[in-house]
Amino acid sequence: MQRTLGVCYYPEHWPETRWAEDAARMAALGLTFVRIGEFAWSRLEPKRGAYDFDWLRRAIDTLHAAELKVVLGTPTATPPKWLVDEMPDMLPVGADGLVRKFGSRRHYDFSHDGYLEECKRITLALAKAFGTHPGVVAWQTDNEYDCHNTTLSYSPAARSGFQAWLQQKYQSPDALNRAWGNVFWSMEVSDFDEIELPHLTVTEANPAHVMDFRRYASDQVVRFNKAQADIIRAHSPGRDVIHNFMGRTLAFDHFDVGADLDISSWDSYPLGFLEDRSDQGDAWKQRFARAGDPDFQAFHHDLYRATSKGRWWVMEQQPGPVNWAPHNPAPRDGMVRLWSWEAFAHGAETVSYFRWRQAPFAQEQMHAGLLRPDSSEAEGFDEAARVADELGQLDTVLDEMPDKADVAIVFDYPSGWAWEIQPQGREFDYFRLVFDFYRALRKLGLSVDIIPASAPQLDGYPLVVIPGLFTWSENLVAEIRDCKGQVLIGPRSGSKTSDFAIPDGLPPGLPRDVLDMRVTRIETLRADTPVQVTETGTFQFWREFLETGSDAETILSADDGVPALVNQGNLHYLGGWPDQALMRNVLSNLAKEAGLVTRDLNDGVRLRRHGGHVFALNYGASSFDLAELGWTGTPLLGELVIEPSEVTIMAVSDAGY
Amino acid sequence: MQRTLGVCYYPEHWPETRWAEDAARMAALGLTFVRIGEFAWSRLEPKRGAYDFDWLRRAIDTLHAAELKVVLGTPTATPPKWLVDEMPDMLPVGADGLVRKFGSRRHYDFSHDGYLEECKRITLALAKAFGTHPGVVAWQTDNEYDCHNTTLSYSPAARSGFQAWLQQKYQSPDALNRAWGNVFWSMEVSDFDEIELPHLTVTEANPAHVMDFRRYASDQVVRFNKAQADIIRAHSPGRDVIHNFMGRTLAFDHFDVGADLDISSWDSYPLGFLEDRSDQGDAWKQRFARAGDPDFQAFHHDLYRATSKGRWWVMEQQPGPVNWAPHNPAPRDGMVRLWSWEAFAHGAETVSYFRWRQAPFAQEQMHAGLLRPDSSEAEGFDEAARVADELGQLDTVLDEMPDKADVAIVFDYPSGWAWEIQPQGREFDYFRLVFDFYRALRKLGLSVDIIPASAPQLDGYPLVVIPGLFTWSENLVAEIRDCKGQVLIGPRSGSKTSDFAIPDGLPPGLPRDVLDMRVTRIETLRADTPVQVTETGTFQFWREFLETGSDAETILSADDGVPALVNQGNLHYLGGWPDQALMRNVLSNLAKEAGLVTRDLNDGVRLRRHGGHVFALNYGASSFDLAELGWTGTPLLGELVIEPSEVTIMAVSDAGY
Amino acid sequence: MQRTLGVCYYPEHWPETRWAEDAARMAALGLTFVRIGEFAWSRLEPKRGAYDFDWLRRAIDTLHAAELKVVLGTPTATPPKWLVDEMPDMLPVGADGLVRKFGSRRHYDFSHDGYLEECKRITLALAKAFGTHPGVVAWQTDNEYDCHNTTLSYSPAARSGFQAWLQQKYQSPDALNRAWGNVFWSMEVSDFDEIELPHLTVTEANPAHVMDFRRYASDQVVRFNKAQADIIRAHSPGRDVIHNFMGRTLAFDHFDVGADLDISSWDSYPLGFLEDRSDQGDAWKQRFARAGDPDFQAFHHDLYRATSKGRWWVMEQQPGPVNWAPHNPAPRDGMVRLWSWEAFAHGAETVSYFRWRQAPFAQEQMHAGLLRPDSSEAEGFDEAARVADELGQLDTVLDEMPDKADVAIVFDYPSGWAWEIQPQGREFDYFRLVFDFYRALRKLGLSVDIIPASAPQLDGYPLVVIPGLFTWSENLVAEIRDCKGQVLIGPRSGSKTSDFAIPDGLPPGLPRDVLDMRVTRIETLRADTPVQVTETGTFQFWREFLETGSDAETILSADDGVPALVNQGNLHYLGGWPDQALMRNVLSNLAKEAGLVTRDLNDGVRLRRHGGHVFALNYGASSFDLAELGWTGTPLLGELVIEPSEVTIMAVSDAGY
Repeated sequence: MQRTLGVCYYPEHWPETRWAEDAARMAALGLTFVRIGEFAWSRLEPKRGAYDFDWLRRAIDTLHAAELKVVLGTPTATPPKWLVDEMPDMLPVGADGLVRKFGSRRHYDFSHDGYLEECKRITLALAKAFGTHPGVVAWQTDNEYDCHNTTLSYSPAARSGFQAWLQQKYQSPDALNRAWGNVFWSMEVSDFDEIELPHLTVTEANPAHVMDFRRYASDQVVRFNKAQADIIRAHSPGRDVIHNFMGRTLAFDHFDVGADLDISSWDSYPLGFLEDRSDQGDAWKQRFARAGDPDFQAFHHDLYRATSKGRWWVMEQQPGPVNWAPHNPAPRDGMVRLWSWEAFAHGAETVSYFRWRQAPFAQEQMHAGLLRPDSSEAEGFDEAARVADELGQLDTVLDEMPDKADVAIVFDYPSGWAWEIQPQGREFDYFRLVFDFYRALRKLGLSVDIIPASAPQLDGYPLVVIPGLFTWSENLVAEIRDCKGQVLIGPRSGSKTSDFAIPDGLPPGLPRDVLDMRVTRIETLRADTPVQVTETGTFQFWREFLETGSDAETILSADDGVPALVNQGNLHYLGGWPDQALMRNVLSNLAKEAGLVTRDLNDGVRLRRHGGHVFALNYGASSFDLAELGWTGTPLLGELVIEPSEVTIMAVSDAGY
Repeated sequence: MQRTLGVCYYPEHWPETRWAEDAARMAALGLTFVRIGEFAWSRLEPKRGAYDFDWLRRAIDTLHAAELKVVLGTPTATPPKWLVDEMPDMLPVGADGLVRKFGSRRHYDFSHDGYLEECKRITLALAKAFGTHPGVVAWQTDNEYDCHNTTLSYSPAARSGFQAWLQQKYQSPDALNRAWGNVFWSMEVSDFDEIELPHLTVTEANPAHVMDFRRYASDQVVRFNKAQADIIRAHSPGRDVIHNFMGRTLAFDHFDVGADLDISSWDSYPLGFLEDRSDQGDAWKQRFARAGDPDFQAFHHDLYRATSKGRWWVMEQQPGPVNWAPHNPAPRDGMVRLWSWEAFAHGAETVSYFRWRQAPFAQEQMHAGLLRPDSSEAEGFDEAARVADELGQLDTVLDEMPDKADVAIVFDYPSGWAWEIQPQGREFDYFRLVFDFYRALRKLGLSVDIIPASAPQLDGYPLVVIPGLFTWSENLVAEIRDCKGQVLIGPRSGSKTSDFAIPDGLPPGLPRDVLDMRVTRIETLRADTPVQVTETGTFQFWREFLETGSDAETILSADDGVPALVNQGNLHYLGGWPDQALMRNVLSNLAKEAGLVTRDLNDGVRLRRHGGHVFALNYGASSFDLAELGWTGTPLLGELVIEPSEVTIMAVSDAGY
Repeated sequence: MQRTLGVCYYPEHWPETRWAEDAARMAALGLTFVRIGEFAWSRLEPKRGAYDFDWLRRAIDTLHAAELKVVLGTPTATPPKWLVDEMPDMLPVGADGLVRKFGSRRHYDFSHDGYLEECKRITLALAKAFGTHPGVVAWQTDNEYDCHNTTLSYSPAARSGFQAWLQQKYQSPDALNRAWGNVFWSMEVSDFDEIELPHLTVTEANPAHVMDFRRYASDQVVRFNKAQADIIRAHSPGRDVIHNFMGRTLAFDHFDVGADLDISSWDSYPLGFLEDRSDQGDAWKQRFARAGDPDFQAFHHDLYRATSKGRWWVMEQQPGPVNWAPHNPAPRDGMVRLWSWEAFAHGAETVSYFRWRQAPFAQEQMHAGLLRPDSSEAEGFDEAARVADELGQLDTVLDEMPDKADVAIVFDYPSGWAWEIQPQGREFDYFRLVFDFYRALRKLGLSVDIIPASAPQLDGYPLVVIPGLFTWSENLVAEIRDCKGQVLIGPRSGSKTSDFAIPDGLPPGLPRDVLDMRVTRIETLRADTPVQVTETGTFQFWREFLETGSDAETILSADDGVPALVNQGNLHYLGGWPDQALMRNVLSNLAKEAGLVTRDLNDGVRLRRHGGHVFALNYGASSFDLAELGWTGTPLLGELVIEPSEVTIMAVSDAGY
C-alpha cells in the first residue's frame, strides 16, 4: 500500500483568504491527508441549535480542490461555554472532590448521559452534513481520550453510573460483597446505591472496589467512542473511523476502544515524552534530549498496530520543539525525518504532522508547526519534504503490510490498573515493567508484536513474553498450552483472580501440568537492595520466592538459593523484575532456543524488520557501521555507515536474516 | 510470670468449618491468646439493632474448647455503612476541609457525640453478651487510635466540642485572649463561639491556638477510649482492658489513654517502620532493610511499658513481608524470632502475631500471616514455633518483672505537639530528638525506662535525660531538685510556658538555685552548617546561646566560644542538638559520673538488662563475640558468639554487671 | 539629607507602664522613627463603631514626648473577627477553591467592595483622629501587600470584579475573544458574565486569560492602597504615605502602587530570604547562611528606590534570627550593621529595625527584636547603636541623593506574570533572570538603577540591560532609539504582544531599522544540557535561534553555529540565558564599550557608588584588601583591608573612579 503524510490544520484559526494558499503549499509539500475540525464546536454551533457549517464546508472544499483528503474531527473534546452552562454537572470532578471548570479542554465527564446525547447530536449533524462529501475520507472521534488524566471522574453521574454497572455485573449486593471481600473492615453493603466512589477514603479503598471502578471508567470511554463511531458509520459510508491515542496512557482499554475503530492512531511527541513520561534517569534523558527515547515510539507503534487489527497512523507527529514538557528542546536535525521513518518501519499507513502553522495565540502558541506563525518554513518542513520525496521513490518497496514479528509481548490494560491500585513496592509500574522487556528485546535487534491478553493469538511466534499479567483468561491459558514457541511468564503474572484476590493455590495460578510451581512469598525491594541472580544480573524492585514441583526445573537461582528462573517444557517462569543485564541474559538464551537471530545493539541504534526489509535508525550521537552486524550490499535508503539521525533500509537478505 | 504468644484471627473471614482446625493448629503451635472481632461490626449488627452474635459465640466457643484465651475487640474502628448513612456528619474532615468517605476504616470523628453513643451501645451489647464467657479473658478497645492520622478532624462536631472545651478551660474570652496573646494580629474574640479550628488560615495560626486544639483532640481520644473501658469493666469483671497503640504516633497522649487500660499493647512492624517512619538516611535503611532499626522496637517497648504502669503486650508482631510501606522486603531468617525475644527482654507479657492466615482478599491481601492463604505454613510460623518452644524451656527464668533501668528518659506527648506546631527549623522533631538520645544510650549498652513528664518519678535513677521538654510542671521541677542521679536537660527544654509563650526570665525557666543559666538566643541550622563543639562532635539543626550565672559552670563550649554544656550540681544543660559523636561523648561521661557500666556497641548488636539477666540481640549482618564485652560462662539461650539474627541470654553476673 | 534609624513597636503588646521607658531607650539608642499600629484593629475598634483610640493617643504622646517621630499604620491587614463574621465573603479563596479562614492575617480579598469600604472607614477615623498630631509624621498603608501570596483570590467578588474589568477593557465579548484567541479549543464566550476565573481547569487555561486576571488582581491592590492614601492625604496634610513591600514579590505592580506613595519601603530579611527565596544551590546557601546573599538586598534597594521616584526606606530590617524560614540561623556578628549600611549606600532615608522587643507570645515569638522578651539588649541592639553613632559622625557626608548609576536594568512586573504563566522551561523565572544580570553587573563593581518598563527613561545611562521583557511599549522603543549608551536586549524580550500572542513578524518584534533580526525558534534546556557559546560560557535553560538581516552583525555564536549575540549600532541582542561566565564575558565587553570602569570582585565583596563616595561591604568570610582595586588614601569609615562583615566608605576620587 501507499504510505502517506498528512498534517493537522485549523482553518478557523486563520483568515479564510489564506486557506487556498495553505492548501496549495500542503499539496506541494507532498502531503495527502489534512485533519481538521476537532476543536471547533464554538464555531460550528455558536449557540444551541444555531449550526454554522458553511465555513467548514468551504474549508473542506478548498482542501479537496487541492486534492487533499480530509480527516474530519468531531469537536466533542471542547464543549462550548453555552453548553456547559446549560448542564454544569457535565463537568468532571477530581479525586479531590473538586469540580473542574471550563477554560481549557476535555472538561466533560464520560459518565454524563446528557453530555453523551449532546455529542451524539453534534456528531449526527456533522455526519449528515459532510458524511458523503468527496473530500472527507475519514473521521476522528473526539481527541486524545484521557489526555490530562480525564478518564476518571468522581461526579454524581459517575457514582450512579458505577452503581448501575455493578448491579448489572453482580446482580446482588451479596455477590458483590463476596467478590470484593467486603467482610474485611466491615465494608459490606446491603444495596447498590450504598456504593461510594473509591476516593477520599481515610486510607486505601478495597482494591477490588477500585478495580471495578477502573473497569467501569474504561467502559464509559468505550461507550462514548462507540456512540460517535456508530453515527459516523451510518451516515458516512466508506470512510474510516479513527481516534488519536496518546503515549503511555493506560487509563482505559485501548483494545476495547480500538475494536470500534477502523484505524488506531496516536500522537507521537518523542522529546516531550522522554522528559515527561520516562522512568529513565537524568543521564539517559540528557543523552537523548534531542532525539527521544530510542524505544518509546517503537513500542507505541507496535501497540497501536494491534489495537485495530493492523491499520494504524501517527496522527500527530512532533515537528519541532513543543510547549508542554518540563523542558522543550529542539530536535536534532534529521530527527523529524527519522521519527517519520520509524513509524513506516512499523507499518504506519500515514504520518501526520502536528500542526501546519504554529498558532501565535492561546495555550499552544509555543508548539512548533511545519510553518512558523509568520508562515515561513520551520525546520520540520524541510524534513517532512524529504520524507515525502523518499516515500515517492520507495513506494513499491513499502507496498506491503509487516508480517508477524519475532516476538510477541502480551499486553493488558487491566494489569496496568491493577498494579497502579496495588503496586506493593513504590517502583512497580506495569508499563515500566513491560517496556523494560520491550527495550531488552529491541536491543537484541528483535522485532516485536504486541498481543492483547483479552484476545491472545500466540500461534506462530518463536518467542512469547508475558510480564506482570494481572489474571489469566481461559483463552490465554489455552493459547499457552498450544504454543510451540518459547514462552516466558512473570514476574507477578497470574497473581490475582479477576476479583482481585490471591488465587486459591497461590500464584501464578496455572494448572500444574502447565507449570508445576507456586509463588509462596513475594517481596518488594528498595532500589539499593537488589537481589543478585547471576554474576552480572539482579532482580530489582520485585522478587518472588518460587517453590517448584517435580515437573518443573530450576534454571537460575538467586545468590540466596531461591529459584529465579524455572522451566517446564517450553514454558519459563521468571521470579523477579530483572535489570537490563539479567534481562539480556535470559532473553538472549530464550531467543537462541527459539531459533531467532539476535544482535547486540548499542543504546542508539535500532532495527525493525518489516516484510522483506530491515530498517536501521540511529538515535545515538555517533555513527555506526552496519557491516558490524554482517550487513552487506547496497541499502535502498541511506548508507551502511549510519550517521546520527539517519535511516538505512536494507533487504533482509542483505541484512543476514 | 509466664510469657506467652498469641495471634490475631478473623473467624468471619473463613468458613466456619475451618475454625476448629485453625484452633487446633494454634494450640499445637504453642499460642495462648487469640485476638478476634475488632473489625466485625457489619457481621455483628448487619442492620440497626439486628444483632447477630451467634457466630461470634461459636467462634469463641471453638477457641475456648482448644484452650485458647480470647481477646475480644470492640468493632468501633469500622462503623458499618448503614450507620454512616444514618449520621453522615460522623465522618472526619481533613485539614483541607474535605469530608473523608466510607470505604476503608477509622472513618469517624472522635468529637462526634452521636457516634460515641453508638460505640457505647455496641460495646455494651458485646460486653453483656460475652463479658463473662470463660473463654474471654481480655478486651481490646477499638483498633490503633490515630492510625492513618485520624486524631485530628476539622468537622463541625470538632469545632463545637473545642469551643466548649475552651470555655471550660478559660471561663472567659478575655482569659483566652490573654493566654493566647490574641492581641497579636488582632486575633481577639469576644465569645467562645467565635473560635475557629486552626486550619486553612492564610498563614500559620497562633501556636497557642493550635496547641489547645491538639490538647482537645487528645482528650477526645481519651474520652472515646474511657467510654468503652468503663462499660467493659462494668460488665466483664476480671478481664483486662487493652488497646493496641502504634509506632511513632504522638498525636494523642498515650499516657492519658493508658491510664484507663490494664495493659498497653502496640503493633510492631520493624521493616515497615524502618522504611516509612525513620529519620535515618538511605544507607541505614539499606543496611537494616531485612532486620529493622535496632532501636525502634526497643524504644516503643520501653514507652508502652510506661503507659499502663508496667503491663504491656505486643498485640501485632510482623511475621513476614507487609503491604503498606514504600518497599516491603522479607525479613531475614530469624528476625521474627529476634523481634519476639526483644519484646520479652523489655518485659512484654505476650507477643501476638498478626495474623494467623494471610487474607487473599481486600486491602491487606499482601500482608503475610503465620499461614499462607492456602493454609500452608509461612516462614514466620516456624520462627514462632521456635519461640514457643524456648519460652517453655525458660519459663521460670523469665518469671520476673524487669526492675528499674539504668537511665530514665522523660517523655511528653504535648512536647511532640508543640514542636510540630513550631519546629523553628525544618528538621526539629520531638520524636527524632528523643530517639537520638535513646539510640545513643542503647549504643552504650544501657537499659532505659521512659518516664512521663506528667507524672515523673525520677527517684533511684543514676541518670535522667530530659530532651526538648515543652514546659515544666511543678512536679517535675520538684523531682529534679530531689534527684540524686545525674540529670541532663535540653536542648529546648522548658522553653515555653504552658500557654505556649516564652517564660518571663527566658528559657529554660528553672529557678536560679536549680540552674543559674538562661538561653538568650537560639538558632536553627541547615544540615550542612553544624556548629563544632568538640574535636569530634557538633550541634546540628538547633543551637542555643547560653548565658551562665555565677552558680553554673561551663563544661563544654562551641568553637565560637558559646557555652555548649553547663553544669550546676548534678544538673547539666545541653545547649544544642548533638550529633551521635557529641551525644556519645556527653552521655558516656555522665554515665561514668553516675556509676554506670557502659559498653561501646556496634550498630547491629544491642543489649537489654532484665532483672537478673541480660539479653543480647544481633540486628547486624556479621557475628559478634560477646566475650569482647567481658561476658563469660554459659548463656541460658544462644551462644557467646552471636550470629546475625540471633539472641543470647546471660545471667547478669556472667555479663559483667 | 539626614539618614536615620527607626524601629517597629507594638504598644498594645505591653503594659502601658512600660511605654515611657521604652521610648526613652529608643531615643537613647539614637532612633528617630517608630512605626506603630498596623495590626491593632481589634484594639482600636473592639466592636463595630466602638472606637477606642485613647490608648493609641497616649502611646503616640509618649513617643512624641521622647522626640520620636511616629509612622502610624492602618490596621487593615488584620480585620477583626467581628468584622469577618459580618461579611464572611470578604475572605479570600485559594486556587484550590477553598475559603481561607480567620486566625492569622491578610484574610481579606482585594476585590471585595464591602471590605474596601470598611478599610476606608477605619482609615478615615484614624486620619481624622491623628492626622494632625504633631508626633505623627508619616503613615503606613496596610502591611506587606501580597505577603503569604494574598494578591490572587478566586472568590465570587473576584469573579464579578474581573468580569467588570474585562468589560471595561474590551467593551465587547467579540473583542475579548479575538484578543485572547478564544477560537482555540472553543473557548469563546458570548457575554462577559460567562468568564470564569482561570483556576481548576482540566489543563492550563489560556495564557491571555490568566494574564488579564493577573493585571486585574494587581489593579485591585493599587485600588486598595490608593483608597487609603487618598483619605490620609486629605486628612493628614504634610505627612508621608508609605507602604512596606516585600522581597522577591512580583504578584502586583509595585510601580503602580508606588505611584500613590510618597515613600516606598520594604522589609529586608537577608537570612530568611536566602534560605527561602534564593535560586542558588546548597553550597551558596551554606556559605552565606549567616550573612545573606550579597546581592539580594542591594537589588531590592535599587528596585524600591525606583518605585516612588527616589524616596525609600527599609521599614523592617532583620535584627537577629527570624522565625519563618526553613532554617533560621543567627547573623554573623556585624551583619546587622552591614545590612544597615548597605541600605544607606543605596540611598535609603531610614532603616527601621523589626522589632523593638521580641514578643514572647503568638506567631512571631521566635523572631528576634532589638530587645529580648525580658527587655535585655539583644545582639542587634549594639549593632544598631553603632550605626546610629556612625551616622551621626558621617551626617554631612551622606547628605546627598545618589546620582544616576552606571547601568540601568529595565524591570517589569507584567513580565514576571507572563513567564510565570508560560515558563516554557521549568527554570524560567523572570526574577531569576533579571537577578542573574544584576548579580553579574554587581560582581563587576557596577552600580545599578532599576528603570520601570512602563515609564522608561534611559537617557544618560552608559549601559542599559533589558532581559526577558514581555512586550514593548511605544515609549520604550522610542527610548531605545534615542539611547546613546550601549543597550543589551534579551533573551526573550519582546516575544509577545500585549495580548500574549507571538508578534506578527516573530520576536523580538522591534522595527527592522532598530534591530534587523528575528527569533525563528526557541528551545528550553535541561540544566544538564546547556549550549556552549564561548570557551568558558554557555546558554542554560533557554536558547533562541536567531536569524539576522543585513543590518545586524553576529558577534558571538554557539558551538552549533547559531548566532548567540547580535549587534546593530549600539543595540545588542542576546539569544539565550547566559551562565555567570558568559554573562561576565558579554557584560564586561559592553561596559568597556560604554566607558565604564569594571572590577573583578570575589563572591563576598560588593561596592556601591553613591554620589561622591563608594561603599565597600564584605559579605564574605575572609578579609579583602581594597588596595587591590587601586583604592588609596584614608576611608571615611572602616579600613582599606576590609574584614568580614565590615564596611568601608571612600571618596570616589580615592577609589579610582
